[in-house]
Amino acid sequence: MPHELIDRHQATLDSALAALAARDYWSPYPESPRGYGEPVALDALQGRSLLLDQPGSDGQIGPDPADGGERSPYGPELRVAYPHAGDPEALVAAARAGQPAWAAAGPLLRAAVCVEILARINARSAEFGTAVMHTTGQAPGMAFQAGGPHAQDRGLEAVAVAYAEQTRLPARADWTKPQGKRDPLVMVKEFTAVPRGVALLIGCNTFPTWNGYPGLFASLATGNPVLVKPHPRAVLPLALTVAVAREVLAEAGFSPDLVLLAAEKPDEGLAKTLALHPDVRVIDYTGSTGFGDWLEDNARQAQVYTEKAGVNTVLLDSTGDYAGMLANLAFSLALYSGQMCTTPQNLLVPRDGIGTDQGHKGFREVVADLSAALDRLLGDDARAAALLGAVVNPGVLGRIEQAEKGEFGETALAPRAVAVPEWPEAVVRTPALVVLDAADAALPGECFGPVAFVVAVDSAARGTELLRDTVRERGAMTAAAYTTSPEVEAAVVAACLDAGVSLSLNLTGQVYVNQTAAFSDLHGTGANPAANAAYSDAAFVASRFRTIEVRRHS
Amino acid sequence: MPHELIDRHQATLDSALAALAARDYWSPYPESPRGYGEPVALDALQGRSLLLDQPGSDGQIGPDPADGGERSPYGPELRVAYPHAGDPEALVAAARAGQPAWAAAGPLLRAAVCVEILARINARSAEFGTAVMHTTGQAPGMAFQAGGPHAQDRGLEAVAVAYAEQTRLPARADWTKPQGKRDPLVMVKEFTAVPRGVALLIGCNTFPTWNGYPGLFASLATGNPVLVKPHPRAVLPLALTVAVAREVLAEAGFSPDLVLLAAEKPDEGLAKTLALHPDVRVIDYTGSTGFGDWLEDNARQAQVYTEKAGVNTVLLDSTGDYAGMLANLAFSLALYSGQMCTTPQNLLVPRDGIGTDQGHKGFREVVADLSAALDRLLGDDARAAALLGAVVNPGVLGRIEQAEKGEFGETALAPRAVAVPEWPEAVVRTPALVVLDAADAALPGECFGPVAFVVAVDSAARGTELLRDTVRERGAMTAAAYTTSPEVEAAVVAACLDAGVSLSLNLTGQVYVNQTAAFSDLHGTGANPAANAAYSDAAFVASRFRTIEVRRHS
Repeated sequence: MPHELIDRHQATLDSALAALAARDYWSPYPESPRGYGEPVALDALQGRSLLLDQPGSDGQIGPDPADGGERSPYGPELRVAYPHAGDPEALVAAARAGQPAWAAAGPLLRAAVCVEILARINARSAEFGTAVMHTTGQAPGMAFQAGGPHAQDRGLEAVAVAYAEQTRLPARADWTKPQGKRDPLVMVKEFTAVPRGVALLIGCNTFPTWNGYPGLFASLATGNPVLVKPHPRAVLPLALTVAVAREVLAEAGFSPDLVLLAAEKPDEGLAKTLALHPDVRVIDYTGSTGFGDWLEDNARQAQVYTEKAGVNTVLLDSTGDYAGMLANLAFSLALYSGQMCTTPQNLLVPRDGIGTDQGHKGFREVVADLSAALDRLLGDDARAAALLGAVVNPGVLGRIEQAEKGEFGETALAPRAVAVPEWPEAVVRTPALVVLDAADAALPGECFGPVAFVVAVDSAARGTELLRDTVRERGAMTAAAYTTSPEVEAAVVAACLDAGVSLSLNLTGQVYVNQTAAFSDLHGTGANPAANAAYSDAAFVASRFRTIEVRRHS
Repeated sequence: MPHELIDRHQATLDSALAALAARDYWSPYPESPRGYGEPVALDALQGRSLLLDQPGSDGQIGPDPADGGERSPYGPELRVAYPHAGDPEALVAAARAGQPAWAAAGPLLRAAVCVEILARINARSAEFGTAVMHTTGQAPGMAFQAGGPHAQDRGLEAVAVAYAEQTRLPARADWTKPQGKRDPLVMVKEFTAVPRGVALLIGCNTFPTWNGYPGLFASLATGNPVLVKPHPRAVLPLALTVAVAREVLAEAGFSPDLVLLAAEKPDEGLAKTLALHPDVRVIDYTGSTGFGDWLEDNARQAQVYTEKAGVNTVLLDSTGDYAGMLANLAFSLALYSGQMCTTPQNLLVPRDGIGTDQGHKGFREVVADLSAALDRLLGDDARAAALLGAVVNPGVLGRIEQAEKGEFGETALAPRAVAVPEWPEAVVRTPALVVLDAADAALPGECFGPVAFVVAVDSAARGTELLRDTVRERGAMTAAAYTTSPEVEAAVVAACLDAGVSLSLNLTGQVYVNQTAAFSDLHGTGANPAANAAYSDAAFVASRFRTIEVRRHS
């Protein structure tokens, strides 16, 4: 199957496959903005209309907020118009129409087309960064990196895992079974990976590309057309993605309708409608536990992959680098105002304090020193804004205000309003630290946003138990621990293996518990209630296709 | 991790992995009874008590039929006693108790222990053959082969696929990320495959080992303890299996309770009770569509793999070997009295007949010639009995009697009672052929047993459509077609890829549509309603475990 796109991208695919096996650092998409051209200003995006000629549309969304147009968490209206998916049947039918040719293209050509889509997205990373910033509230640097190259990494990873799994069986095999003195039985067998049906991606508000690309590309690479249902507040990054995908598909001779935007106005319930469509056979979702559970319970005709909410826990037992620990934790709590599914929330500290390279530190000292570390990190408004980004929605702001009022317990570090001169309407707040004692109350449940809890526990052993119980009962995307004790370390590792969460141990440098690297770290495990899958292991792709065998005498 | 069992079985595992990639013929378990010692008579099994010291028992099943003891389809009582699983909580608790050490053993040692279990089962194949014969009604030769070495092949295949998937990620990886002029970030990452929880195997009456071993060994090899709930009429083969597994596990230093028999008397509903237990996280089931659907709908805490019922279709368009086609089809219809989930049921023949190397054959000629082929194959009672085995249960006999009475339509070939002098009580019947016209009636739904339908259709093209519709709507484990026309062949292949069923083309020799070979053929596809998984692809094993990562600075 010679094809120019295969020639162009075979080396990238091979490198990705090698990286997946080695799990060392690797990326084809440089993460520094240098080399991607000038930053793209918001007004370069405003006023556009995207994809209005798509099938299944009965009008448009935006550009006015009254018509569903997005408003940036930094203040401005986005002023972009999209097609309104008023005819779900037509969307599904259009998606299905392109499927046979896409299925027949085979795993390698599909992978090459997907890598070309990612390459074109990569070339426009500056534009995607601005789109992500003004839909999620991420600060510009993070929006570029997490919304651009790092999201592309996760997309390419999914393409590579999908390719690997689809090619475990040879396309053709000869089978020769000896029959003693008689002639052997000889058969020729052909194995073809076939898609499951139409896939549905339900995007989230905070990481539309990073959390969206694994499912989108895993489904597309395995032959399934994909309906992309963005969060109504974060349409632009996925609409740009869909536009690039459609352009590449059409140029490669396939139906552009293999990737369709399915945009709605808030609260139209389009995700539910599409999720229950009998032709929709794969669903990827990131968002609230409530809707994730609804999908798992109701979209029974589909293979459903969900990433829902959890409570991420850190156990502090002891450290050989107290300053490094505090700085690392402060950064993790501050990054994107704690609005990551991976941000630590409950910090468990023995009531008697912890051992450190600076001597024993009492519980209250730890709280004070962590507060000071946050103050140092975020004392300068410009630097704070570059780390915090903006509060993404009123729900998060409400929880910050609850912390301010002491409604969660004793607020040891109050949130501070940060002014961003360039975006006067942006709501920016430093994290709050709330102090609790596990002897007095149950551990806090999920509290999404910049509110962390420092919880006094009886001992490291009790903290380990609480960590395990939290993962089991409430789910977790991440766990972390600080300890210099081999016994405590072994117990925490055992608890994490048992409860099913990945563990970051003694992070004191520039690696943070809330960040995972594609091709090396798995994101999520699928083993606890926070998510039923991981980016991207074999289980994430292997059920998106089936293998059909045709056999005959040779 | 040096271990004597690893030394003993590493080469077998490596060969299995190589075979899975190449899909050529391979097996470590010779399929001929030669070399396995003398056949084992039923009375060598009668009078045994198995596993009565298992936890979770509140008494025993059998040996009297009044106490749930089995009765052979060939007539005799089996007179074997098993523990009655009266305390499901104790069973689950016992299974869970052994899990941590088994999980910690890692994929390679688990695989080696599983291969040792299979090796000991293999050495006792003669005994397993007799146990399978007298629970399923399979004839001795088939019971030995399908219930012995071929089932062991499927078990080993599952072990190998499970090992491969658990080791896609390295156990340990170094990660070094360049930081320009600064020192690189360096992390050490460990990846551990962890089991999902307790697994439940719900066995079937007709192929307790062949259909049971894939799930049993896939779950065990991925670290999950397994509760083996046999069909009440086919306990013995799985009880023997459990006994061997427990013996090997204990010798290897693990809890024997990692594999437990969960036997019940008929209609106690133990499968439902266990399937809903919150600790049961993986279920494998082969049986009726009704209970399979119930499991999928209700055992929501578990990953459920089901093989249910389907309607297998053969399209007859044309052939270059008319005699070979008829002989091949007759064998497929007769083997184990059509009591295979893979037996062809609906044979679609153009109303105008088919082209053959012996000239054009009209529809009625095809029916008559196929009837004659069956008569030739089964004319001698001893030979017929060796192929047909015995009718497994009264439901099958009822359908044979319906065919005799013409209740399904015109019976072109009536079933014939075959006498088996050695087993005078055995009910043995040759297959019935019923003739229908698709113009007059809908195609028959599932009719498990030795009743096949020759259905007149408008054309090969219409037959292809009907085949596709049948697979989509009713499911199918197999499909077959005979054609010398490249156009018809292409259309049938396209229909099978589209509807999601594997296809056997123009089988005229000693390979039959109802047989698949481990390490080469997939059994089922997971792409149509007959089954949601295939023996054994990555999707069959990849969700039986999750991968947990622990990372730290180097």
